[in-house]
Amino acid sequence: MTFLRLQTSDQANMLSIPDLIRKKRDGETLSEDDIKTFIQAITTKNIQECQTGAMLMAIWQKGMVNSETKTLTREMMSSGEVMSWPKEWVGHVVDKHSTGGVGDKVSLVLAPALAACGCKVPMISGRGLAHTGGTLDKLESIPGFNISQSTEQVQKILSSVGCCIVGQTEKLVPADRVLYALRDATSTVDSLPLITGSIISKKGAESLSALVLDVKFGRAALYKDLDSAKELALSLVNAGNGLGMRTGAILSSMDATIGQCVGNSLEVIESLETLKGKGPEDLMELVTTLGGMLLMMTGLVSSQSEGIRRISEAVISGAALSKFEAMMEAQGVNREAARSLCSKQTDYFKILRKSKHQTELKTPEGGVVMDIDGLTLAEVLHKLGAGRSKAGEPVNHSVGAELLVTLGQTVTKGVTWLRLHYEDPAPTPDQLQRLQSALTLGSDSQTRQKHNLVKELLLPN
Amino acid sequence: MTFLRLQTSDQANMLSIPDLIRKKRDGETLSEDDIKTFIQAITTKNIQECQTGAMLMAIWQKGMVNSETKTLTREMMSSGEVMSWPKEWVGHVVDKHSTGGVGDKVSLVLAPALAACGCKVPMISGRGLAHTGGTLDKLESIPGFNISQSTEQVQKILSSVGCCIVGQTEKLVPADRVLYALRDATSTVDSLPLITGSIISKKGAESLSALVLDVKFGRAALYKDLDSAKELALSLVNAGNGLGMRTGAILSSMDATIGQCVGNSLEVIESLETLKGKGPEDLMELVTTLGGMLLMMTGLVSSQSEGIRRISEAVISGAALSKFEAMMEAQGVNREAARSLCSKQTDYFKILRKSKHQTELKTPEGGVVMDIDGLTLAEVLHKLGAGRSKAGEPVNHSVGAELLVTLGQTVTKGVTWLRLHYEDPAPTPDQLQRLQSALTLGSDSQTRQKHNLVKELLLPN
Repeated sequence: MTFLRLQTSDQANMLSIPDLIRKKRDGETLSEDDIKTFIQAITTKNIQECQTGAMLMAIWQKGMVNSETKTLTREMMSSGEVMSWPKEWVGHVVDKHSTGGVGDKVSLVLAPALAACGCKVPMISGRGLAHTGGTLDKLESIPGFNISQSTEQVQKILSSVGCCIVGQTEKLVPADRVLYALRDATSTVDSLPLITGSIISKKGAESLSALVLDVKFGRAALYKDLDSAKELALSLVNAGNGLGMRTGAILSSMDATIGQCVGNSLEVIESLETLKGKGPEDLMELVTTLGGMLLMMTGLVSSQSEGIRRISEAVISGAALSKFEAMMEAQGVNREAARSLCSKQTDYFKILRKSKHQTELKTPEGGVVMDIDGLTLAEVLHKLGAGRSKAGEPVNHSVGAELLVTLGQTVTKGVTWLRLHYEDPAPTPDQLQRLQSALTLGSDSQTRQKHNLVKELLLPN
Repeated sequence: MTFLRLQTSDQANMLSIPDLIRKKRDGETLSEDDIKTFIQAITTKNIQECQTGAMLMAIWQKGMVNSETKTLTREMMSSGEVMSWPKEWVGHVVDKHSTGGVGDKVSLVLAPALAACGCKVPMISGRGLAHTGGTLDKLESIPGFNISQSTEQVQKILSSVGCCIVGQTEKLVPADRVLYALRDATSTVDSLPLITGSIISKKGAESLSALVLDVKFGRAALYKDLDSAKELALSLVNAGNGLGMRTGAILSSMDATIGQCVGNSLEVIESLETLKGKGPEDLMELVTTLGGMLLMMTGLVSSQSEGIRRISEAVISGAALSKFEAMMEAQGVNREAARSLCSKQTDYFKILRKSKHQTELKTPEGGVVMDIDGLTLAEVLHKLGAGRSKAGEPVNHSVGAELLVTLGQTVTKGVTWLRLHYEDPAPTPDQLQRLQSALTLGSDSQTRQKHNLVKELLLPN
């Protein structure tokens, strides 16, 4: 009897979908039950698409308070399978998420470095939509690399290797798949609570002990200024901690490129070079900062500086490289190919596909390299096939660019500053001119710092 | 060559649907081309429902300026068939639209009165969703009355009779049918531009010379206060004139009921009584004011007061009654039945269905009738089957209520003030109490004016 009455009262409190939309439309705070109703309706397809569109727009317009975002994230996470790990791993299962940058190959170095430090890294990554390829696209430029792994296979690879980088399975966070596609169609992508729910629900479904976020700001980032990036970082950290994961974030500037290579195959090469101890400084700074935070959050080290040192050692010693080699093998790469890619002296293009054509851009005058516009590079490379415009489109892994100068470097006139790798289509004169315009030279007296520096750390309380 | 270039430039200017949504989302003004793109995408189904939902919510949130609303209305109108009339009718094709009230039977008296004055009235009406039935439901309580008439049949009836009251055909304003259904589902019904587009596009498709709008305000109206009703009226008048129809509006209060009867059959009876010269004062005020404006706008009379006199005479003389009889016959009612309903002494319930049960509510004390809450009456009658909750549901034409007292009347204790007509379900004690609560009695010294008075006229400039 009591049970029946509770049922009735529950149903009486459950708002209809139009009521929920009206509530958010009018700027009211949705209750836990409201958000549960909405996300369950999404997952069970008991909502009209027009209603989802209207609700997304209402959320875009009116935003969500922290408690709503936390609930949204939790309900999205619970819409599908939530991974579980052996007891002995508790405390050491970690992952990183980046909001995306040009030449961002941090995952390829960080995942094996963390594994070398004793972490379990079930890294679930995405494909690129904007500009150049995403982490999965980069890895798929390695022949044989299989990003589709079941939850059971992920656990097996984590047991033997310690890290893997895989695509999202159908079973994880189905509500996000629906919402993400509709957000794109309805111009509601750039909404703080929706971005937060999408990113953190997927990480929550990995049942992480600790998560670190690399939130980019600047010309080539989603958010152009530090303040709005910080707002996103705080929202992500808040939602992550709300799911019981220790969650921290860094804010890093994204104006030029990360490292010297952009484009899928070329970024794999730069990652391998980094794992061989010859990586660019900015990439290493990101890897060690993010990794250091994770090691600290898991309690494996007691300070950020010790964490940085441990990650750095894992890279320098070659321990991270061994993990990467093992991961490649575990994810389907032929043993010989994996070994060849990871050996000290190697011709990467024996294994990876080299573009049929290259062309070199020269400095038009002498001077100091003041700026390299990463966004312009990415936009041109995208048009040349390095990235895709629609989900499902193929990318050309061989297309990319090598930067042969660094910020702050003094160059003479006529020096090669960029080597473009292309196939079909070839760059138009206009595109070559755009690429050339990405380089800004200045006078000797103006000194210039390297761009991609970490500006701030947000640690969980 | 020039043509080709124009084509290309046209397409270059055409925004994608997500771009259009983004533009409105950000509060920008949509161009004529933008709105055309949106409405054409609706009509040709080249838009995802989620996108329509998001756009409706963006319009709800950000509104539209007058020029946008005008374009929206015109594009909606042009999404389907636009009626055309014989040359000799030009200037005399008129219609009225009301935003809806309790006991609103104005159309049943006004259409034949206007026809009697020489107008052509192709009245396209709707079914009720809220509270009690709409004009079509009322007419369908007359056995044989067929509201489905093709455009050709409408023209034939207008030729012979001068007026008809019909439902919307599939061919008229298809964009509105799509949008209306989605607005309901997405809680975006109460948006000024969307209401305006929906109402005026349908009237525009009737190719009217003049249109008058009865915009209600008060307890039982969509808009509770005069100011917001006036805002709607101005938007409607603006959009109507924008389509080249002379468009005016009145603002009338809607707190009690219009006339003394509520419910489909009962309202038909009250309309017939009115056409026989025995109608309630408030109903006659609305009919003559609205009709007078239309006669003035068509140029058939030169002043509002002359228009009022002409409409009044058409009703008093029985000319309007003859038109109503002819209209019933033309729309399928058996000649004997039509004649019987329109004869001076008649038992209406020989033709119309009488409810199986009636019950009477008594005044609990003596006093002056200060208030009769029309909304409460409508809500209870709705639950008893006089109205529907979802499109397509049947209504019980016999359910309704007769008010046996008028506002300002002095009554003694124990007098019947309301006769409820019901069938299945029977009213619950709670519902009877709610009905009783609709009556407010006061002391002799407080005199009370009749409610439903016209407050303001808005004439086209």
